[in-house]
Amino acid sequence: MSRLNSFFAECTRVVDESLENLIPDASIEPTKLHEAIRWSLFAGGKRFRPALLIAVGDAFGAERKKLLRTAAAVEMIHTYSLVHDDLPAMDDDNLRRGRETCHIKFDEATAILAGDALNALAFQTIGEDENLSAETRVKLIAELARASGTPFGMIAGQQLDVEAEGKAISIEQLEQIHQSKTGAIISFAAKAGAIIANANETESNAIANYAGHLGLLFQITDDLLDITQTTATLGKTAGKDTRAAKATYPAFYGLAETKKLAENIHAAACQDLEKVEKDSILLRKIADFILQRKK
Amino acid sequence: MSRLNSFFAECTRVVDESLENLIPDASIEPTKLHEAIRWSLFAGGKRFRPALLIAVGDAFGAERKKLLRTAAAVEMIHTYSLVHDDLPAMDDDNLRRGRETCHIKFDEATAILAGDALNALAFQTIGEDENLSAETRVKLIAELARASGTPFGMIAGQQLDVEAEGKAISIEQLEQIHQSKTGAIISFAAKAGAIIANANETESNAIANYAGHLGLLFQITDDLLDITQTTATLGKTAGKDTRAAKATYPAFYGLAETKKLAENIHAAACQDLEKVEKDSILLRKIADFILQRKK
Repeated sequence: MSRLNSFFAECTRVVDESLENLIPDASIEPTKLHEAIRWSLFAGGKRFRPALLIAVGDAFGAERKKLLRTAAAVEMIHTYSLVHDDLPAMDDDNLRRGRETCHIKFDEATAILAGDALNALAFQTIGEDENLSAETRVKLIAELARASGTPFGMIAGQQLDVEAEGKAISIEQLEQIHQSKTGAIISFAAKAGAIIANANETESNAIANYAGHLGLLFQITDDLLDITQTTATLGKTAGKDTRAAKATYPAFYGLAETKKLAENIHAAACQDLEKVEKDSILLRKIADFILQRKK
Repeated sequence: MSRLNSFFAECTRVVDESLENLIPDASIEPTKLHEAIRWSLFAGGKRFRPALLIAVGDAFGAERKKLLRTAAAVEMIHTYSLVHDDLPAMDDDNLRRGRETCHIKFDEATAILAGDALNALAFQTIGEDENLSAETRVKLIAELARASGTPFGMIAGQQLDVEAEGKAISIEQLEQIHQSKTGAIISFAAKAGAIIANANETESNAIANYAGHLGLLFQITDDLLDITQTTATLGKTAGKDTRAAKATYPAFYGLAETKKLAENIHAAACQDLEKVEKDSILLRKIADFILQRKK
């Protein structure tokens, strides 16, 4: 197994262990709500955002135990966004991470509430993290709230995305959607690792830039995969963007040009890392991984 | 105007001013999202929870400026819960605070996202509050997350409430629903005032008990109003609980017995206040107000 694969496997293990302890047991009332949360959270997600957070924290020498709760929190926010995004009034999808979406397996009310609960649990998880100073917790919470909310965060991006369906939008608008919908939380994950490790300003800025490029790269490859891969490989419905007449990079630039764009952004992310005077090989490998990912 | 009425009016003014500054302007993208948030937030709500927070903070001598952001945050959480609660998959209501509910005025996707955004904005609002120490902010955030989430908070209560519809449940179950669905946030509001004012443990406990009784009283009178008042008076659909075969106090005890129960709980709340060695007349008047409220 490559160094990156074993790192991802280890992250999945420690983050899942952490999530297991943080989420109320499915035997606790309201059992259906906790089952639904667990159904969506433990669906074999890639744990990419927590792994990125841990990789940055590791690179800057943060103690591992200081990273775990924030890593779990970012996965809670990511999962809640998927649960709500799959609802009939939103993307209306019945397949996610290779199994039924939350509102199909349970019901719509439960899916709405499971997402809401995960949103609160994420902030609770950082708020109660006794491994971090109150100052660090407050900084992380404010960053996470901005990254997941509005006007520059994930929810703003989801709103713009919903509104853009079937409409002609500019490439600038497309970038704004992606930067907020997907990029903001990925940026948060990377920045959080640097915040917890008390990285200096120059290096924090370099990481923020790296994370920005990474987020964009992630979205562009997501768009590419929606076209080039099958539903079975992705574990979610493929070809959906085209059918929904969604604005995507391939729709703008065509397949070949989009692949070139992805390579350029990957190169920019690697350049950002040159300003980091730490062992950043793993961060480099994460950028490679996103460029080359097959699902 | 009575002292309580002028206090409520003043709270509405300062809390609305605070919310006005905290919520992105409706001219900022995504404009529809921010319009929807503002539609639901500035719909002439009673601002009861912020007023309770401010009243407790005032009683314990907290500086007013230290209370305003947390007061605004609790109203954001309350409003998001109403927006999601009104969705077709939940209570399916089209009238709230005297006007169209968020998903009727806008659309379902926007209402889901407006609620999600308010949830994040509430934590951001406290996280960024420079009038409070990091320690106080972290304490408030963790309390608010527990009070609004699961297994003991508002979302747990909403889930139990949805599941209880049309079913025979015990009085203990009914109390558990109300304690989590409505009581937890009202308790948070009162406790937050005490936390910000650095109240001592004995008095904090007394306030927590007072708040617990107040929350229960609020729900019981809510149940009574649903039966005894008209839709026009309430500004939301009246008689809904009965039609939905919802478990309520009057359904259990009948009208006369429920009124007596409300009086007993009011008396208990007033007794709690006797342990507070501060001017708690306003807190007493708030309990009176809830007992006697007509909408």
